[in-house]
Amino acid sequence: MSEKISPLAPVSLPIMPAISGVKLGTASCEIKYKNRTDVMVAELAPGTIAAGVFTKSKTASANIWWGKDAIKHGRGRGRVLVVNSGNANAFNGKCGEDSVARIVDACADLWDCSREEIFPSSTGVIGQPLPDEKITSALKNIKENLQPNSWIEAAKAIMTTDTYPKAATRTAIIGGVEVKINGIAKGSGMIAPDMATMLSYIFTDAAITHEALQEMLSGAVEDSYNSITVDSDTSTSDTLLIFATGKANNKPITSVTAEGAKDFKEKLESLMLELAHLVVKDGEGASKFISIKVTGAEDKRAAKVIGMAIANSPLVKTAIAGEDANWGRIVMAVGKSGEEANRDKMSVWVGGVNIVKDGQLNPSYIEAEVTNHMKGQNIDIEVYVGIGNGSHIVWTCDLTYDYIRINADYRS
Amino acid sequence: MSEKISPLAPVSLPIMPAISGVKLGTASCEIKYKNRTDVMVAELAPGTIAAGVFTKSKTASANIWWGKDAIKHGRGRGRVLVVNSGNANAFNGKCGEDSVARIVDACADLWDCSREEIFPSSTGVIGQPLPDEKITSALKNIKENLQPNSWIEAAKAIMTTDTYPKAATRTAIIGGVEVKINGIAKGSGMIAPDMATMLSYIFTDAAITHEALQEMLSGAVEDSYNSITVDSDTSTSDTLLIFATGKANNKPITSVTAEGAKDFKEKLESLMLELAHLVVKDGEGASKFISIKVTGAEDKRAAKVIGMAIANSPLVKTAIAGEDANWGRIVMAVGKSGEEANRDKMSVWVGGVNIVKDGQLNPSYIEAEVTNHMKGQNIDIEVYVGIGNGSHIVWTCDLTYDYIRINADYRS
Repeated sequence: MSEKISPLAPVSLPIMPAISGVKLGTASCEIKYKNRTDVMVAELAPGTIAAGVFTKSKTASANIWWGKDAIKHGRGRGRVLVVNSGNANAFNGKCGEDSVARIVDACADLWDCSREEIFPSSTGVIGQPLPDEKITSALKNIKENLQPNSWIEAAKAIMTTDTYPKAATRTAIIGGVEVKINGIAKGSGMIAPDMATMLSYIFTDAAITHEALQEMLSGAVEDSYNSITVDSDTSTSDTLLIFATGKANNKPITSVTAEGAKDFKEKLESLMLELAHLVVKDGEGASKFISIKVTGAEDKRAAKVIGMAIANSPLVKTAIAGEDANWGRIVMAVGKSGEEANRDKMSVWVGGVNIVKDGQLNPSYIEAEVTNHMKGQNIDIEVYVGIGNGSHIVWTCDLTYDYIRINADYRS
Repeated sequence: MSEKISPLAPVSLPIMPAISGVKLGTASCEIKYKNRTDVMVAELAPGTIAAGVFTKSKTASANIWWGKDAIKHGRGRGRVLVVNSGNANAFNGKCGEDSVARIVDACADLWDCSREEIFPSSTGVIGQPLPDEKITSALKNIKENLQPNSWIEAAKAIMTTDTYPKAATRTAIIGGVEVKINGIAKGSGMIAPDMATMLSYIFTDAAITHEALQEMLSGAVEDSYNSITVDSDTSTSDTLLIFATGKANNKPITSVTAEGAKDFKEKLESLMLELAHLVVKDGEGASKFISIKVTGAEDKRAAKVIGMAIANSPLVKTAIAGEDANWGRIVMAVGKSGEEANRDKMSVWVGGVNIVKDGQLNPSYIEAEVTNHMKGQNIDIEVYVGIGNGSHIVWTCDLTYDYIRINADYRS
């Protein structure tokens, strides 16, 4: 399937530094695709700390169950990450667990480490047995050819119908020591005939305990990955993993509030937000990147529910695709969210222009003022709901003909 | 805006009998549309019992607040229903309440009844003052020309971008006495630049108390109107009203479980389901009518949540538009619903063919067996989730290019 590159793709790929303690390798195993890489391995130095956040889907893949258990019952360590595209190893019954076990065993043998230090991820079609022998038979060669700098190649190997590789980097200072954070992600492209996944892997040379790393990761997820939506559908395989090699030799961070943690935490959050935005911008058929800020809600939770009701409304998303500042649909979506809103105090801004004021059309609103904004690629919506002090921002993309084409017509 | 008639429209309109105690009238008031009727009045005999169910939207229109109050604080009586299309009288601040008050006052004067017996409804664009004088000045003439048989004309006057009028009729027997039930509805068409509403009005000559009527109506809503979805968006104006004139002179029904209530209740439920299905079949851009049955859920509530997760999934809806039996997306939607499901016991049927069995692809599944079903207009999906005995059915339509065209491109 050849897709044109998203019009929202960044103009250039970032230059990613090496991270001490991390080596990368890729291979073409023909799991489903031909003539491209489809397996990525990250080798992590012994002692690397791991933390993760996984899909809440009730039909999660075998890999998800393995990852959750490994983080929980292992000691939060990571030695090898193995990711394949082309097959999600999901909803294929006992097959899925067997494939995970074989990949984990092969890695544990080859790297001579405990099984709980191995993290296998799969993305692609579901309901098919994973031809895991294609992966395990390639591992030895991959291991012999690992490189510290092949970040973009790694990001490419995990793509499914993503139209561009997603990577970001940050530098943070911990107690005067510079540490690096690199992240790669794949987005919500779809693969005929099945489903998408959001996968994201972050690597740092910072020294940090598992508990502090897990808390930082879980905390930052809420305002980044958990605040984006393309089409409201949740994958069976969503995975976010972070690995900290400790090779920067900073004074180890032992808690989120520890001295020296602040800059690292901020840079981690900033990197996660950048990756999350890159995923939205490669949403299927996306032509606009939409930021929705909700203020005046009962609390932050309520603000997020309202924001997501707007972001997931097909009527709002199609209006934006049509470059129509259809504030009526925004108001409708607030109403259906189920959260408290004071109709007579509500205000709506689009592109900074105050369209609705105190529950009715602003008398001084001139539609032409919003028209140019609607023609741009970045659409900013703000809604004040007049109840309390809760606020939150969510991000989404528009709903276009191309979304339907990609998801309905790919067999024709 | 001229729309082609939905391919799912019924082949003929029903022949609607008169209902003793109900007279209908329509007028062309040019509230927004030209060259069509846009106001409908139903005059109800003195003593007519009223019951209603209204949108839960937090940004509901002034008409909704009036209707809720009138049912609650009046004595559940109805004398006049006045419905206009072209303007929803929603989100226009104090204007909306003033318009409602003027319409109610004019009707109460003209029909010499209490204000709580007047039910004004509005559907169409939001955020604009309703030119209510166009309605009130037409009332006298409408009243002088009321007819007992103009049901289809009434259904046409309340249409917005509906592509066909929606009406249904039933006959029930209460203690040996024949009673009639007629219903009309309008669906989820959209009006540039604003929003849609689901409006439905049911009339019967049965004698029944307000309490029994309200309980029957509220009970039947759950399995009909509240089990359909076009695009998950909730209107500010959704209204369902029922009026019982008592002119059939049956022994009055005093409770849902009273002797003689059973047939009436069944026929009412059947009529409401027919109207609800007519609304889905006129969903914007709909080319397929989709039934989704969920069994084996924790309880009925959980089954409905799972059914709605499938019905509202853009990925499921686009797959069906593409005539693709994409069971992976159905499984994904079950997973994201948040309700319990046993992955290893799940089964999925499409068109009666068992695709997924015990959590994996049925080894004897042959895709060609489902292909013909997918090409038809009626798509049947059943999912067993392996937890308990809860079951529920929901209905929706597919998501097509035409949905995007109608909602994004109408300004171009």
